[in-house]
Amino acid sequence: MKAKSRTTLELQPRIRIRAGNEIPLGPGKSELLGWVQKTGSITKAARKMGMSYMRAWTLIRTMNACFKEPVVVATKGGNKGGGGAQLTETGRRALALYESMNRKCLRAARPDWTKLQTLLEAR
Amino acid sequence: MKAKSRTTLELQPRIRIRAGNEIPLGPGKSELLGWVQKTGSITKAARKMGMSYMRAWTLIRTMNACFKEPVVVATKGGNKGGGGAQLTETGRRALALYESMNRKCLRAARPDWTKLQTLLEAR
Repeated sequence: MKAKSRTTLELQPRIRIRAGNEIPLGPGKSELLGWVQKTGSITKAARKMGMSYMRAWTLIRTMNACFKEPVVVATKGGNKGGGGAQLTETGRRALALYESMNRKCLRAARPDWTKLQTLLEAR
Repeated sequence: MKAKSRTTLELQPRIRIRAGNEIPLGPGKSELLGWVQKTGSITKAARKMGMSYMRAWTLIRTMNACFKEPVVVATKGGNKGGGGAQLTETGRRALALYESMNRKCLRAARPDWTKLQTLLEAR
């Protein structure tokens, strides 16, 4: 048995939704929606995630195509000169449901996770 | 609103375990363990997943280093000439707990998932 320093163990639900060959929502897209909601801007949201505007826009375009209604809309001519972006009602509901699924998943997995940790941790 | 053909919607819990900078178990590694268990061979398991033996071996080596005991052991000199591989008790327990977490996650997420589908599906 190896001597091992104690490392931080974490359980990460990374729920993914599949629609045929598309992925309407997953860990990355939901994080992006969260940043658009917080910052009111695709540019700022992209920067927070260390991705290009083009990459963020591509992810948003995929989401907008997969949902019945767009999840993000541009808001032109904002107060500080230059447009912004915000979540639509569909976008807010989709994000809230995704985050709720993550929380419920974590809670449901906790008893097994506790057992699994005993196989991983050096005690 | 767009006319849209009906696509198959699927919720995929892709639970990942983090231990510091390592990932002792996730969707790919658990699938690999499952194939080793079914086929009794790393070579065959790798082939089932369309990956090289070297890639499969690297994944197994990571798991073996993260768990207190190895999850896979080589079984040399089997009946059909040439060695095989099998899950250890730790490997079997880890895989069973991972699959149990996935099932419980899916069940816990179902009510929200039903609501989310109404935002995705063309009705």
